[in-house]
Amino acid sequence: MSLRGLSPAQVLARALEGDRHATGRLLTLIERGGEGADEVASLTHPMAKGAHVIGITGPPGAGKSTLVGQLIKEAVRHGARPAVLAVDPSSPLSGGAILGDRIRMDDPESDCFIRSIATRGHSGGLALAVPGVVRVFDACGFGPIIIETVGVGQVEVDITAAADTTVVVMNPGTGDAVQANKAGLLEVADIFVVNKADRPGANEVRGDLQIMLDLSHMTGREDHWGRRPPVVMLKSLEGTGFGELWNEIQTHIEFLGIGSERERRRHLRQRAEVEARIEQIVHQSVQQVLDSQEGGRVLERLRKLQDSPASAAKELARLLLGS
Amino acid sequence: MSLRGLSPAQVLARALEGDRHATGRLLTLIERGGEGADEVASLTHPMAKGAHVIGITGPPGAGKSTLVGQLIKEAVRHGARPAVLAVDPSSPLSGGAILGDRIRMDDPESDCFIRSIATRGHSGGLALAVPGVVRVFDACGFGPIIIETVGVGQVEVDITAAADTTVVVMNPGTGDAVQANKAGLLEVADIFVVNKADRPGANEVRGDLQIMLDLSHMTGREDHWGRRPPVVMLKSLEGTGFGELWNEIQTHIEFLGIGSERERRRHLRQRAEVEARIEQIVHQSVQQVLDSQEGGRVLERLRKLQDSPASAAKELARLLLGS
Repeated sequence: MSLRGLSPAQVLARALEGDRHATGRLLTLIERGGEGADEVASLTHPMAKGAHVIGITGPPGAGKSTLVGQLIKEAVRHGARPAVLAVDPSSPLSGGAILGDRIRMDDPESDCFIRSIATRGHSGGLALAVPGVVRVFDACGFGPIIIETVGVGQVEVDITAAADTTVVVMNPGTGDAVQANKAGLLEVADIFVVNKADRPGANEVRGDLQIMLDLSHMTGREDHWGRRPPVVMLKSLEGTGFGELWNEIQTHIEFLGIGSERERRRHLRQRAEVEARIEQIVHQSVQQVLDSQEGGRVLERLRKLQDSPASAAKELARLLLGS
Repeated sequence: MSLRGLSPAQVLARALEGDRHATGRLLTLIERGGEGADEVASLTHPMAKGAHVIGITGPPGAGKSTLVGQLIKEAVRHGARPAVLAVDPSSPLSGGAILGDRIRMDDPESDCFIRSIATRGHSGGLALAVPGVVRVFDACGFGPIIIETVGVGQVEVDITAAADTTVVVMNPGTGDAVQANKAGLLEVADIFVVNKADRPGANEVRGDLQIMLDLSHMTGREDHWGRRPPVVMLKSLEGTGFGELWNEIQTHIEFLGIGSERERRRHLRQRAEVEARIEQIVHQSVQQVLDSQEGGRVLERLRKLQDSPASAAKELARLLLGS
């Protein structure tokens, strides 16, 4: 049945009945942003079922997509209905390429849903779209919700940090552990995966990791299990090690449920979303100030090297905040 | 001579005399942000010599670092003093690895300067640090200034778009042209490079590119030479094609000098920097609002599913902007 002419509320009703095209339409509305996205967010927010959100991140080429593909299979095997949001623009998951022969994405009976999202658009776009997509998946009964990011930019690290369980993936012998540390990923990891663990250098990466974790005193942090995050050795292409990864994720879910850590993370996630939305609203006001006569005057002084960037910004910020 | 105990102004004086360690110290201050960075920016801003800024971007694995290494050699051969800022966290340029045996980075007589910058830190960090680093390089007499980014995040596309000349690098047969389009890179490219042009699929990538450029009607845009951006076929490992790339960059520099395009781009760059600075200031005010009693009340309503994210943000934004 065509979705043409239906309101977001009507499309949502279809999606809740299991219409996958309707779910896809909701995701498109979220991705486009603006009023349509806000309406979908307002409709789906009260329907939160509390699905577990897993962030999978790591450098390009770490084999994240293959891992996600196997993780989906593992989840389906355990009776779950996983959904994937691939934020990584180079992810082959976009077209379902990797999963093509294993799980038919077009199959209306399929127990999983995969969606990729473009990272372009206004700067706050991703920070707004990701929680919106998670909310749609959650309302439609999907779970766990897996977010795949390449983890090189700050926004992506923020998104990863906002997951209930964050899995950081790296490869043997590529200096990945050092790079992940540089990108701030070590601090947000709940579980580490060394992918392609049959290759030379896999144990060295594990060793590097453990040294860095010890040095950074992260082993005793309350939000990190009170212990050093586990390191799972995986062979994605052969599909071995996924049982252990699944078990570690379940153990982490149990850990989150014991204290207030799950609540704390979800609160942070909601706060981060509201923050991104406020900054989007403010962004428009900033443009207005820059476009104003006063803004033009300040930029002209800067251009003529009569003013420094810092003082120009302070002057205009005062104007904006009315202080 | 040790730099310990010197003020930023004194360190700058050393850097202007050619002391490379002093230049490095200034860059560290910029990267750290805060007052030290502002002071360096204020000191170097009036010293602008107007060095040409070249942005090199493309997907991970496109061979950007090898290309930059060759481009540096080409620049030095033409008597220039190039400087490189590698924003790509996976760039092997960080450690000077690729250039190690060709140009001694530690050599005080070396005619180039390479610096990598971490992408972590507060969200506006990169948008603030990059212009700061460019300003230091420029004041110290380096040019052209080459910025290497992986081009997957919005901030990185923004940085790339802010260059005088933007070079987008892609590989044969990897769907790079489609990905670059998705990431918004086609719109900002002044010159395209197909790297590893001796591999199968190189001509197909060129063909894909030309079709997409035609479809997107970018060929007639005033800020894009009034013609379709050239596509240079390169073999980075052998070092062939760099003469052509250098020539295309020179042609673009000439084009920028004819009309007001260079001025327009630099104005946009300064505006973007002031904008990032304003948003950094505002960011702190947003935190204050979220931490306030009223902020807590709004977030609590959101948590209890009594309010939507959009209306929560609107309420707090009104509070912030005092409107």
